[in-house]
Amino acid sequence: MALTEFALIERYFSHCGAVRGDVALGVGDDGALLRSPSGEDLVAAIDTLVAGVHFPPQAEPASIGHRALAVNLSDLAAMGARPAWALVALTLPESDARWLEEFARGFGALALMHNVALVGGDTTRGPLCVTVQLLGHVPPGHALRRGGGAAGDTLFLSGTAGDAAAGLLLEQGGLALADLGAAQELRARFAFPTPRVALGEVLRGHASACIDVSDGLLGDAAKLAAASGCGVEIALEELPLSHALVRAVGVERARHLALTGGDDYELCFSVPAAHVAELSRALPQERWNYRCIGTLRKGAGAVVTRAGTVMQFSHSGFEHFAS
Amino acid sequence: MALTEFALIERYFSHCGAVRGDVALGVGDDGALLRSPSGEDLVAAIDTLVAGVHFPPQAEPASIGHRALAVNLSDLAAMGARPAWALVALTLPESDARWLEEFARGFGALALMHNVALVGGDTTRGPLCVTVQLLGHVPPGHALRRGGGAAGDTLFLSGTAGDAAAGLLLEQGGLALADLGAAQELRARFAFPTPRVALGEVLRGHASACIDVSDGLLGDAAKLAAASGCGVEIALEELPLSHALVRAVGVERARHLALTGGDDYELCFSVPAAHVAELSRALPQERWNYRCIGTLRKGAGAVVTRAGTVMQFSHSGFEHFAS
Repeated sequence: MALTEFALIERYFSHCGAVRGDVALGVGDDGALLRSPSGEDLVAAIDTLVAGVHFPPQAEPASIGHRALAVNLSDLAAMGARPAWALVALTLPESDARWLEEFARGFGALALMHNVALVGGDTTRGPLCVTVQLLGHVPPGHALRRGGGAAGDTLFLSGTAGDAAAGLLLEQGGLALADLGAAQELRARFAFPTPRVALGEVLRGHASACIDVSDGLLGDAAKLAAASGCGVEIALEELPLSHALVRAVGVERARHLALTGGDDYELCFSVPAAHVAELSRALPQERWNYRCIGTLRKGAGAVVTRAGTVMQFSHSGFEHFAS
Repeated sequence: MALTEFALIERYFSHCGAVRGDVALGVGDDGALLRSPSGEDLVAAIDTLVAGVHFPPQAEPASIGHRALAVNLSDLAAMGARPAWALVALTLPESDARWLEEFARGFGALALMHNVALVGGDTTRGPLCVTVQLLGHVPPGHALRRGGGAAGDTLFLSGTAGDAAAGLLLEQGGLALADLGAAQELRARFAFPTPRVALGEVLRGHASACIDVSDGLLGDAAKLAAASGCGVEIALEELPLSHALVRAVGVERARHLALTGGDDYELCFSVPAAHVAELSRALPQERWNYRCIGTLRKGAGAVVTRAGTVMQFSHSGFEHFAS
């Protein structure tokens, strides 16, 4: 089945995601025309997923569509922003209508869930690679940033950590698991991550700093600390681990994956110690699913403690172009 | 020389392009924070350049940086928008500080010229590919669109056509030219195209429809006509050709390249016949450098005439994923 680029875009992307009244002109012209709510700041993020680097080359296209949007939703969540509009640049080795349909299905379902309209795109031929650009809004002066924390602030993490890394290992054959339910749960955490958009929004006014965990908790917490001009201490025993992960690899390896594995897309945020009680009242932990994992402290760098003693770690999370 | 991703971004992209007062937070956090002028519509475009598809793999990095921004500036020009902010997603096979420096130089010089701030980015490892997302503004209801034309409207083209296609042929060894000055001029038209941003803005209120010529004049004019619910007729003798192009390939081949070659990034626009005199008064042709090349007409499709007789063409411009 051969369709021209125009027909492909028309077929799969013209009606993908939410329909929003603030889109004056969407897919199909040289650019999209959008109406921002007056008095709000615009928040913009961009992220690329490359086949063989960010996902296995044979990953199901619905997962690629989901993840390409999810990583950007997670960036906006980390800013405390409400997402609105997305643009997709898709590079494909060949025209494949079924692939595009599945990709659009994965992208569109997550977009609908977050009221995101797909307003523009570009399809090109080349090695498989997807870039999504996401736009959203936040009240001026209320965006969460990486650099607002201070020594003494309490550090929190949403959800559980390490699951996505185990899911990728399962996918790549680096881990075998007899418990099929646990395996499926971990795989889904990699293939269809849940960006914490609602949590990001309600954290405005509570969190002093926030980052999403994409490259590994230890490395990302260190970035938040560095931007805030301090160091960070994480208590190994406090890391939130899923039952599936502990069942799959045992508690010690689970903790290592939680610290160093990427792709969790949870939020790591700091709250001034004096405001932690207020946070707990306003956002009950059992409803919002976050947990205290450490503190920001004077100095620089990230340390992990076990029973109060500082531990050594060989690897502080994945970084592209690492030296 | 090995630098981490963070240091590379910091070094080459933190101070690239214009400094704008409406950027509350630029490169370095999970997203950028931007303040739109109140009462303006936001215009968003995204375009990808893939090595080996949109530029020769060994193209100079300054040209790649320039072109990645230029194709998006051209999209905004075609909407009559004023550009403001750009995000760059760069996929590179390896960390290469010199390459990044040159890329940022090419991108930054063009961004400065158009008062565009680079506000965000993502660098990933993989096959060379650049996606730029560009945001700008336009007064509500005044954006130029592809679909506003009508049968009887006069069709215009800015600049000259076919030069970039000849420049690419020269680059790839598909054309040899003794006249080194002409060769250099044509090469530069491909490697460093000039998006018609100022013309796009002043065409608001004059043009009924507008498109930028990226895939070939004949095909792009046909897209404008199709969106406007009519056909288009282009007079071969009226195609604006540069001296360099005619010297390089002769007038007949120059006309063929002008119709079918891509990458010119000129503006093709229609004006109601009754308003053409007003256009000429408001925007003198010798100052704004555009020329009448045909008309929109009833029906569908694109035809080319020579001395009033319809001609046949084998190839209507480059299209990705063509059937």
